[in-house]
Amino acid sequence: MTQFSYIGKRIPKPDAWAKATGQVVYGHDLKVPRMLYGKILRSPLPHARILHIDTSRAERLPGVKAVITAKDFPPRRFGFAKDRTPLKGDKVRRVGDEVAAVAAVDEDTAEEALELIHVEYEPLPPVFDPEEALKPDAPLIHEERESNLFRHQEYVHGDPDRGLDEADVVVEDYYELGYMQPTPLETCFCLAAFDPSGRLTVWSTTQIPFLLQRDLAEALGIPGSHIRIIQTAIGGGFGRGLDMYSFEPICVWLAKKAGQPVRLAFTRQEEFIAAECRQPMRIWARSGAMKDGRLWVRDVKILLDNGAYVSWGTVTTLVFMETVGSLYRVPHARVISDSVYTNNPITGAVRGFGNPQSTFVVETQMDRLAEAIGMDPLEFRLRNVNRPFEETPQGIKITSCGLKECLEEAARRIGWERRKKKEASGTKRRGIGIAATMNVGGGARIYRSDGCGAIVKVDDFGQITVMTGATEIGQGSDVIVAQIVAEVLGVQPDKIVIVNNDTALTPWDVGVHASRTTFIAGKSALFAAQEVKRQILETAEELLEVSAADLELRDGYVVVRGSPDRRVPFDKVVRARHFREGGQVIVGHGWYDPPNEMVGADGKGNISAAYGFGAQAIEVEVDIETGKVKPLWVVSAHDVGRAINPMYVEGQIEGGVVMGLGYALLEELQVREGRVRNPTLLDYRLLTALDAPKIESVIVETDDPEGPFGAKGVGEMGTNPTAAAVANAIYDAIGVRITSLPITPEKVLRALKEQRSGEQ
Amino acid sequence: MTQFSYIGKRIPKPDAWAKATGQVVYGHDLKVPRMLYGKILRSPLPHARILHIDTSRAERLPGVKAVITAKDFPPRRFGFAKDRTPLKGDKVRRVGDEVAAVAAVDEDTAEEALELIHVEYEPLPPVFDPEEALKPDAPLIHEERESNLFRHQEYVHGDPDRGLDEADVVVEDYYELGYMQPTPLETCFCLAAFDPSGRLTVWSTTQIPFLLQRDLAEALGIPGSHIRIIQTAIGGGFGRGLDMYSFEPICVWLAKKAGQPVRLAFTRQEEFIAAECRQPMRIWARSGAMKDGRLWVRDVKILLDNGAYVSWGTVTTLVFMETVGSLYRVPHARVISDSVYTNNPITGAVRGFGNPQSTFVVETQMDRLAEAIGMDPLEFRLRNVNRPFEETPQGIKITSCGLKECLEEAARRIGWERRKKKEASGTKRRGIGIAATMNVGGGARIYRSDGCGAIVKVDDFGQITVMTGATEIGQGSDVIVAQIVAEVLGVQPDKIVIVNNDTALTPWDVGVHASRTTFIAGKSALFAAQEVKRQILETAEELLEVSAADLELRDGYVVVRGSPDRRVPFDKVVRARHFREGGQVIVGHGWYDPPNEMVGADGKGNISAAYGFGAQAIEVEVDIETGKVKPLWVVSAHDVGRAINPMYVEGQIEGGVVMGLGYALLEELQVREGRVRNPTLLDYRLLTALDAPKIESVIVETDDPEGPFGAKGVGEMGTNPTAAAVANAIYDAIGVRITSLPITPEKVLRALKEQRSGEQ
Repeated sequence: MTQFSYIGKRIPKPDAWAKATGQVVYGHDLKVPRMLYGKILRSPLPHARILHIDTSRAERLPGVKAVITAKDFPPRRFGFAKDRTPLKGDKVRRVGDEVAAVAAVDEDTAEEALELIHVEYEPLPPVFDPEEALKPDAPLIHEERESNLFRHQEYVHGDPDRGLDEADVVVEDYYELGYMQPTPLETCFCLAAFDPSGRLTVWSTTQIPFLLQRDLAEALGIPGSHIRIIQTAIGGGFGRGLDMYSFEPICVWLAKKAGQPVRLAFTRQEEFIAAECRQPMRIWARSGAMKDGRLWVRDVKILLDNGAYVSWGTVTTLVFMETVGSLYRVPHARVISDSVYTNNPITGAVRGFGNPQSTFVVETQMDRLAEAIGMDPLEFRLRNVNRPFEETPQGIKITSCGLKECLEEAARRIGWERRKKKEASGTKRRGIGIAATMNVGGGARIYRSDGCGAIVKVDDFGQITVMTGATEIGQGSDVIVAQIVAEVLGVQPDKIVIVNNDTALTPWDVGVHASRTTFIAGKSALFAAQEVKRQILETAEELLEVSAADLELRDGYVVVRGSPDRRVPFDKVVRARHFREGGQVIVGHGWYDPPNEMVGADGKGNISAAYGFGAQAIEVEVDIETGKVKPLWVVSAHDVGRAINPMYVEGQIEGGVVMGLGYALLEELQVREGRVRNPTLLDYRLLTALDAPKIESVIVETDDPEGPFGAKGVGEMGTNPTAAAVANAIYDAIGVRITSLPITPEKVLRALKEQRSGEQ
Repeated sequence: MTQFSYIGKRIPKPDAWAKATGQVVYGHDLKVPRMLYGKILRSPLPHARILHIDTSRAERLPGVKAVITAKDFPPRRFGFAKDRTPLKGDKVRRVGDEVAAVAAVDEDTAEEALELIHVEYEPLPPVFDPEEALKPDAPLIHEERESNLFRHQEYVHGDPDRGLDEADVVVEDYYELGYMQPTPLETCFCLAAFDPSGRLTVWSTTQIPFLLQRDLAEALGIPGSHIRIIQTAIGGGFGRGLDMYSFEPICVWLAKKAGQPVRLAFTRQEEFIAAECRQPMRIWARSGAMKDGRLWVRDVKILLDNGAYVSWGTVTTLVFMETVGSLYRVPHARVISDSVYTNNPITGAVRGFGNPQSTFVVETQMDRLAEAIGMDPLEFRLRNVNRPFEETPQGIKITSCGLKECLEEAARRIGWERRKKKEASGTKRRGIGIAATMNVGGGARIYRSDGCGAIVKVDDFGQITVMTGATEIGQGSDVIVAQIVAEVLGVQPDKIVIVNNDTALTPWDVGVHASRTTFIAGKSALFAAQEVKRQILETAEELLEVSAADLELRDGYVVVRGSPDRRVPFDKVVRARHFREGGQVIVGHGWYDPPNEMVGADGKGNISAAYGFGAQAIEVEVDIETGKVKPLWVVSAHDVGRAINPMYVEGQIEGGVVMGLGYALLEELQVREGRVRNPTLLDYRLLTALDAPKIESVIVETDDPEGPFGAKGVGEMGTNPTAAAVANAIYDAIGVRITSLPITPEKVLRALKEQRSGEQ
């Protein structure tokens, strides 16, 4: 077995102390000289024509430095579907739509200025129900389109209709999944400043600095070559920053008009009303199996509500297709999806990106099928898992795959056998459920480039700077990259400085999403470090008079293999290379774009260069009197290729589980007639640390052939199977199956009531 | 003639507007969360033993977060001669020596805390006169040394004693040169912050970020690999930042003890008392010539007063040797220098670094020799100038050399012939003087590495980031580097972002000094840009189906040579390289260490890879009643190889002339018994823009074979010959020769009085 020095080590996050003690400077903490405060005036109506905007009183308010409306912008559209402008000039399409904006010397003045802007609306008939929206006489939300249907997609492999006929058993369910918000603790933030020569710098809570540079250029018609994006320190993003939204170009335009830097930060209420959330879905799903335990067919129809505008989040349908088509071996599969416009809130990417939704459907139906054929649900799953180096009918090329091991380990640890001998105590009923997941773990090519670049520079003290395109959003990727470079160069990771958040400094990266950072940024850092190693060895050869082939970098030294006493310190080699005639400093760079494919609307192709797998077994306690579901114990086993830092893998799993439990049991943005009814953290309830059950993270290592040191991604996986496992555990506890999320006490009680009336 | 697109263009400084409108964030403007204010307690005595320091009352003052004395520091010394500690524990050696320091929540509290520190001193006999300091019974300033002599150096070529015998005429003078301060408008600043993992970041007004990293590591015993230096925005440095001084390690140690960031900024008074200044020199100089106009011999003895501690400034003796040994052809030359310790203020580097001093001596004696042999001083100089590709007896390898052209041009423009027909008007007398200069223009190897590194990165919009080790200190080097990269890549310089001030980001550079940045940083950027060009052409070859040899980069396009219509935009090539299977982003790096030599104490060797030359002709008006000298017109002609940006060359020349006029006529730190008597800008007088005469800058281009696009350095040259030319002009006007600087009205009147009494 290979011995690693730094790979696989539990190195704490160096910023953990700073975060815990409030020393980190987040976006909201930023101040620059002459900075103004920006505020956005939002539509109170879900659908209306704008007849007139009068900003004259706001402009006259002392302290107001800029007031802008749609007419200040060039006639350009932006967004995934190029369906929106930063401020709306013709009509508004949702409650919260941006109508005007102001920049003033302080927040109070900006707020007051908003109140002085008079907007005359002509209300239009709204449409909130996605099925209604598809009807021919529905109000058209984007008048340049033929209908409110944004996109129709069909994925098919095998012959699903025949499969449904052939299957020994078929189960069928209707699912309703609601709005969930990414809810990072810091709300949306943007600070825009033009320098006197006209160059723009934008500090943003984005997760996609380089695409934001492109999107701002496109939306505002300013050259991308004059835009610099700096991602602010981020505690957590969870997908919130995966698109450019209106507030960023608005902030830039306020700064341009005011001729001063402008800061724009959402209030928490604004975040709930105007930031993006997970798109609601209605799902009709059928699955069929053979009595011998073979999964035979899946047939799914999705109706996705984009809200008023379309974002990258609409691509979650592709992820749905992957779970349906490839989580297990299944000879026949079909996913038909319609994604539609409504006058509801805008939606976007949330951690898991379609996978928690699809896994909820697929993995609850796995339990239903197992029951229908009278097989243990674990055994049924094991019967149908994919194995390493299998290509699925969808074109997914699985490399390393520990799904079987994850299922077995999760079941073993939670005590799967206890499932059969359940005890009841008073009104409490306990149950155990399991669910598996497959997640992209080697990038996800949703853009022409899925690559990341890195530059590695070594100074005279052996201090190593890694400039990586990949940004840190709280997941710990900085240390992962440092550990990879440390391993190659044989130096302590604390000698490594990571520079990662500035488009002017680092080579390109597509952004933080799809659990891709360890795999792709890690690999590009590996390549850059290998180039540096080559330079180091070149000089060490001369110093030690030994061929590079016989040298290794270890513990801060270049050592002659087999003669540990013949060695020279790393920093001495650096200086020997530098301080001499014809000397050189050490710089290397690397680039990695994984061998994966851009997947079309048909859902076919190998979207990722590797796949992560996992299984969660969850024990819950249901109070049949109150309907309250209490998660007691979660075992979450994941195939991550190799854990570069097991502590962070566990952190990602634990965070994912807690977020998954929120999705399963608590979190829902309540939207009625296009209005968010619970836009506060008192009413939109997140799990706190005190609510978290015991979580046991299990790492299954499989050593992926393509990943850096065998690693695959893990960022999202932990959150995917939770809702399904919880639903399966509830069924195990009380025999009722709930197919809409979150599973609130009211839904449990209603289901129990129906169960009782059914029994009568 | 080669046609350049961006080289030679007068591109304005992009930060000029920001500087003029107060938008630049200087060190003094920096604020970081939890920042404390540091203050230093200084010795009121020039020489004393420290018996006891009581800090207890200061420590108890509310708001005080740290109080430190020498005992808080590890027993380490720093500085050019390793002769000092950050705070002094045993004794103080100058007025202003650092004794204790405090950090508090605001400046007032810090000031108050200083007043609460009680220091008990035992006064020691001081020594202020450098000649006295060399006497055997002089008080010993550094007790571990044998005497107050820091260093004795001797430079000789030919046989100076024989030369003095042989010469037809010999002139002899005694010179006294006083203290001059670099006086940047922003005083010394340092901000030190440790992050929770123990890594140190220091923001500083330094000119040597990488050497400051080394020096702090050495002085404080903390690993250099944990230190990051960020140079703050600098309006002008003028050599002030060329050494680490005590305030920087003090600031760091306050931050360490307080556990919070600490800011330490000098008041203007503190800057005059405690920052470094040009070392005073006493000079005994003889020069000899042959009647036919051949310069024959120079013999110079220097006594340099380092003050209480030695800095890099002591190396100015080497520059003195170069002017004496190589400004003109001279068969015999000798320079003997003693540099000594006194209880006077500390000294350091000031723009010109010995050259204004040596040029004052050499060029006033050139006039004296010319007069002695009855030759026109211009003709005498032209008779003895070096020519291109001449190697001097000193080992100086001149490459390009326009000295002759500079002298001729300066004389022609000022109207040299007017010198003979002078008019007098009332009490006003006019005179014209000339003086030449030779300056290092291709680096100056005073450290093992004289190199600079650069990384060039190109983004998808064709935005180019150059990360260069060389920092901007107001001289405009950022745009110079940008113009060089722009020329290679055929894109507008405004597409180039320069990153230059952070040791963690950029490759190494020895620092901003010796007029080296254009030559060395420019060349390393050139190399990096050439690597990027290679990558661009590789892809353009495929796009245009034309071999790279037939392609050129011009006006933002890759163009087929001779077919201007067959072209593809630069940014399109970048994207074509990136967005494809196996795509790449564009990164290149370069490193340049010039072919120059480390010069020993004997002053021999080729210290620079190229030399700049210049000549100044100055017309002055002397009021024989008041003694006031008014400069009327300066023509300053300089061989700069090639002017990358003529506007900046002119700016450097103009700034140099104004500084040179200050040195010649106004600026002097008045030090009596070790105390600065005029520590304010009211009493220490600088020339203002209104005081500046008409300055005509003349650029003589010679196309240096080694410099980037033929360029050589120009940063210091303009200030070197001014004092000599002024003194020569005064002599021309009123027939008196003043050999001490500044030439104050008092000195002029005294000399006129002596002249009259001599005539009687």
